[in-house]
Amino acid sequence: MGVIKLGICQMPVTASKEQNLSRARQMAAEAARAGARVVVLPEMFNCPYQHEFFTRFAETCPDGDTFRMLTSTARELGVYLIGGSIPEAEDGRTYNTCFVYGPDGRMLGRQRKLHLFNIETDDLVFRESDTLSPGTGPPTVFVTPLVTFGVAICFDLRFPELFRDLAARGAELIVAPAAFNTFTGPPHWELLLRARAVDNQVFVAGAGPAWTEDSPYPYYGHSLVVNPWAEVIACAGERETVLLAEIDLGQVAEVRKKLPLHRTEKSTLIKF
Amino acid sequence: MGVIKLGICQMPVTASKEQNLSRARQMAAEAARAGARVVVLPEMFNCPYQHEFFTRFAETCPDGDTFRMLTSTARELGVYLIGGSIPEAEDGRTYNTCFVYGPDGRMLGRQRKLHLFNIETDDLVFRESDTLSPGTGPPTVFVTPLVTFGVAICFDLRFPELFRDLAARGAELIVAPAAFNTFTGPPHWELLLRARAVDNQVFVAGAGPAWTEDSPYPYYGHSLVVNPWAEVIACAGERETVLLAEIDLGQVAEVRKKLPLHRTEKSTLIKF
Repeated sequence: MGVIKLGICQMPVTASKEQNLSRARQMAAEAARAGARVVVLPEMFNCPYQHEFFTRFAETCPDGDTFRMLTSTARELGVYLIGGSIPEAEDGRTYNTCFVYGPDGRMLGRQRKLHLFNIETDDLVFRESDTLSPGTGPPTVFVTPLVTFGVAICFDLRFPELFRDLAARGAELIVAPAAFNTFTGPPHWELLLRARAVDNQVFVAGAGPAWTEDSPYPYYGHSLVVNPWAEVIACAGERETVLLAEIDLGQVAEVRKKLPLHRTEKSTLIKF
Repeated sequence: MGVIKLGICQMPVTASKEQNLSRARQMAAEAARAGARVVVLPEMFNCPYQHEFFTRFAETCPDGDTFRMLTSTARELGVYLIGGSIPEAEDGRTYNTCFVYGPDGRMLGRQRKLHLFNIETDDLVFRESDTLSPGTGPPTVFVTPLVTFGVAICFDLRFPELFRDLAARGAELIVAPAAFNTFTGPPHWELLLRARAVDNQVFVAGAGPAWTEDSPYPYYGHSLVVNPWAEVIACAGERETVLLAEIDLGQVAEVRKKLPLHRTEKSTLIKF
């Protein structure tokens, strides 16, 4: 129930996997130097957010450059490393998967994106389901000596049932690697992160890639951290940055004592 | 699928039931004169938000001054009247209940508050469950020629499963008579209304009593209406006012086409 420092690497994502891995490692090191014990990367941090790259950059667990970088970075820095997400190949399918490592470099588990992003507007058409497959539940809860947390990836943020499930199974922090864009980011990004925090009385941390002039996908950036009272305690702009936030886990119990949502007398006929 | 005008009566609530009923009728008439076809009153509009008044002011359906006022007002104005809520007595219990009337003055149904408000902070301690009983589900969906809507009362706003249920059963508009206070209002009121709208891609309308100098309960006011893209399309201040909003029901389908949340390919292992 202590205070932990979280570092979010809002990194640019390029068409060079090697460059992406190198940048992720550098920024994770910067976060660790600043005291972060939990380091978070954004969604698809090793790969441009474009269909043709998903299959080309995919790796099969546990082999591949990305897995090697993640395990060595976690071990060398001695941090919990929440590896955003990468395209993961398995049995002929490609998933959008977050791999999580402990401070000894061991992989603690994975969380595949459960809800695939499809959008159809005048400004933007994108169908993840054209190339990716959704994960199947139940979502993973990572129990560590430092903090109990869950992971929800980008479009998963739009489904409150997932967050209810994670909180009910003990998550005090829910980390959302994401790649919101400049169309859905302004109206919905902060709103969704704050809503999940206030409903479940947990910390929520959203991590997005940085916006850059030359990216074909219009990343929104604005990584942010929300406390269980729905206050934004740290927020980045759109550019590359390491965002740091101090998380006082005691606030979870404090807020639940103030507003005892979990013990509320209510109808038993509406179920999750 | 037309455009309808909604009127929210952000009225002061006093210790005189007669005065409250008279004010509700006047403000409903003002809304109707301005073109509102759906008129909404706030939570506990006939009764101060204090335990001793809940039992003293309670009425048993369908007898009592409040029921007579609601039915005649709906009929005379020719509007759908969503009667906020009142303390309702039945079988020795008291409920916090919304009664809904059609333009012919007939009662269409009722919705009892499902989640009772308990709060315990340095600034405010209140336990609705000391005097009130929760309703039991499933919540009512009101299907009318004008619009299909549901009702969620105040603390019900904190439970996303209720809104999922109403939207899944066809609600295009969810009306929330409420009495948020100056403690929870600023951090959570707009956030919760916008979150329910964006998650379920529906209109959400929140109706609160006006703040007044002499009220023992610190009403927050700030009645507001949100569209399915989570934009606030009308918002009141803290004082007495009739808030009007034009609701274009076609936006429900438009937003669902843009972001097809209801058709998203996803894990089937997380259920509501």
